[in-house]
Order: sequence, then C-alpha cells, then structure tokens
Amino acid sequence: MELTPILSAALDAFYEKGFHGASVREIAHRVGVTVPALYYHYESKEGLLVALTELSTRDVLTRAHAADDAGEDDPARRLENVVSAIVLRMTDRARLAAVEGEARYLSPEAYERYRTVRKGIENLVLGIVRDGNRADAFDVEDPAETTRAILGMCQAIPRWYHTEGKLGPQAVAAKYATIASKMVGVEQH
Amino acid sequence: MELTPILSAALDAFYEKGFHGASVREIAHRVGVTVPALYYHYESKEGLLVALTELSTRDVLTRAHAADDAGEDDPARRLENVVSAIVLRMTDRARLAAVEGEARYLSPEAYERYRTVRKGIENLVLGIVRDGNRADAFDVEDPAETTRAILGMCQAIPRWYHTEGKLGPQAVAAKYATIASKMVGVEQH
Repeated sequence: MELTPILSAALDAFYEKGFHGASVREIAHRVGVTVPALYYHYESKEGLLVALTELSTRDVLTRAHAADDAGEDDPARRLENVVSAIVLRMTDRARLAAVEGEARYLSPEAYERYRTVRKGIENLVLGIVRDGNRADAFDVEDPAETTRAILGMCQAIPRWYHTEGKLGPQAVAAKYATIASKMVGVEQH
Repeated sequence: MELTPILSAALDAFYEKGFHGASVREIAHRVGVTVPALYYHYESKEGLLVALTELSTRDVLTRAHAADDAGEDDPARRLENVVSAIVLRMTDRARLAAVEGEARYLSPEAYERYRTVRKGIENLVLGIVRDGNRADAFDVEDPAETTRAILGMCQAIPRWYHTEGKLGPQAVAAKYATIASKMVGVEQH
C-alpha cells in the first residue's frame, strides 16, 4: 500500500507529535504544498487522520481475508495465516499501525466508521476460533476474549518492534503464529 | 495509587489531547493553580509526563513483584498471579495505562529511564517463563517472544476495555491469566 505524499507527510507529523500536536500548516510545509491546496484534498486535520486510519484498517482487513482464504478449510492454518498477515503489517508499517492509537481523537462518527472496520478484523479471527472449536481442532473456553488477546498482542508490536526488534518481520510473524496456535490449544507440528 | 491534583489534571489533559496537544497553561487551569505554581513542582510539561509514566510503571512493577512472590515456587501460579496483577492495573487505571503510549515523546534520557522500569516488568515475566521451562512445567520455544506477546496482549487492554468491556476487572484478569497459561503450554486445572 503506497501512501499519497500528503498522507505520508501527515503520518510522519502525527507519529512524531501526535494528532493534536501536529498542525495542518506543518503538514503542508512538509509535503511542499500550500495550506489551501491541502484543504482542497482533505477538509480538515481530522480528515487526514480519518483517511490514514481507514486506509490502514482496510488494508489489514483485505490482507487478513486473503490470508484466511489461503488457509482453506483448516482452522489451524487459517489462524496462522491471519496472524502472520497482521504481524507483517505491524512490522512492515509500524508507523501507520502506531498512529492508529490516535484514533481515539476522532469525532464520534469517524470513530464509529473506524471501529466498524476494526470489528471486521475481530470478527474474522473470532469466526476462525469458533470454526476451530466446532471442528474440535481448537480448545478455547471464551472465543471472544481469546480473539481480543490475539489481536492485542499483535497491536502491541509497533511499540517495541521499531526500536528493539532483532528479528526480521517474517521471523516475528512465524513466532506469533506459533504463539496464537498455543492460545487456541493447537499443538505445533 | 493516588495521584496528586496536578498529576491527575495532567493525566486527563494528556489522555484527551495527547502530550503535544495539551498545554501547561491548560493543566494549571484544570487544577486551579497558576502556571508559575505548577512550574514550582514540575519543571516542564515533559516533567509531568515523566512523573506519570514513572509512577505508572513503578506501580505495575511493585504489584507484579508482590504477585510473583505470592506464587511461591510454582511457575504456573506465579504467571497467573503476575498476569492478573498487570491486567487489573490496565482495567483499573485504563487512562494512566493509555497515557504510557505517549512515552515515545519523552526525551531520550527520560525515555531510557522509563524503559528501564518497563524492562524490569519484562524481566520478571521472562524469569518466570524460564523457571517454568526449567521445571518442565512450561513448554515454551522462545521465552523472550512469548513474554512480549503476554505483555503485549495486556498492554492492548486499555484500547478496548474502557468502551467495550462487559466483564468486570476480576473476570478479565482471570481470563487473561488462563490465556497466558495456554501460551506457555500449561493445561488449566
């Protein structure tokens, strides 16, 4: 996923100073356009954050669905694939993932749209966990809570990966897929 | 852990607007003191964030150590206790935990101090995982990565708990302790 120059500059500014700390003037300056030119594309600073969080979550959702499909009818493979896809997203675009933390500053309407896409990712994983339980491939007491825990450990990656990661993205993805398998009670092959 | 009025106001301001979005003037206004009076206690806005993140992490560290001790020599109980203690901290003081995300805006020196305390929590859990492996109570391939995954799923709690949690803090803590046990390969009793 390639970001446009304006969104790329907004991402850098939000990452470095937070949503409230970054100004539209500064974002326009970074990208080398005038403030009115920027407003021609995005109606407000919030419009930039909306665009970034939506792009970001939709991109994860698309990748997660593709990874799920590649796992065919095997819940264990589906879960490994989806967790790997999400982790690769976190390591690959750590800044974008980190800026999702700023989503709490969105207006209630924009936050609701953002939450709907996030819910899509949650429901995808929840569906896999339930399918695995049903097929006796998994042993999960509370599918909803385990789903949140799996997504939670992935969401936390941008906090440490950038500065401390000694492993490459693929290696981290493989390790998290293994950990997620344990969380649902699958023994590793 | 009780916060002083100034730190409590700073926490609210940082939570609502982010570190860069909040101003010292506004924090002073919230608490009803003058800006010079605030500067008498904290030398800068960063000083407030330093105080909050240090208080927050030290508090978790203290609780986690106490929980660890209560588990005596049983790695499985130690892990359950420590995870419960951390989760209770996240649900109990979700705002404070959320503001830790702003730690990335600290100066390198302050960030390093903050990281040292966080490292203490990581090392505590890592020690338990290694002890469990050594005692054949756990079955963990990569203790460091599993430790991060356990702490990561806990860190993500403030993102959803406040708005969506239907479970009480104790129930969430118990569920996360169970999930962490699975992550280290312990069958639940």
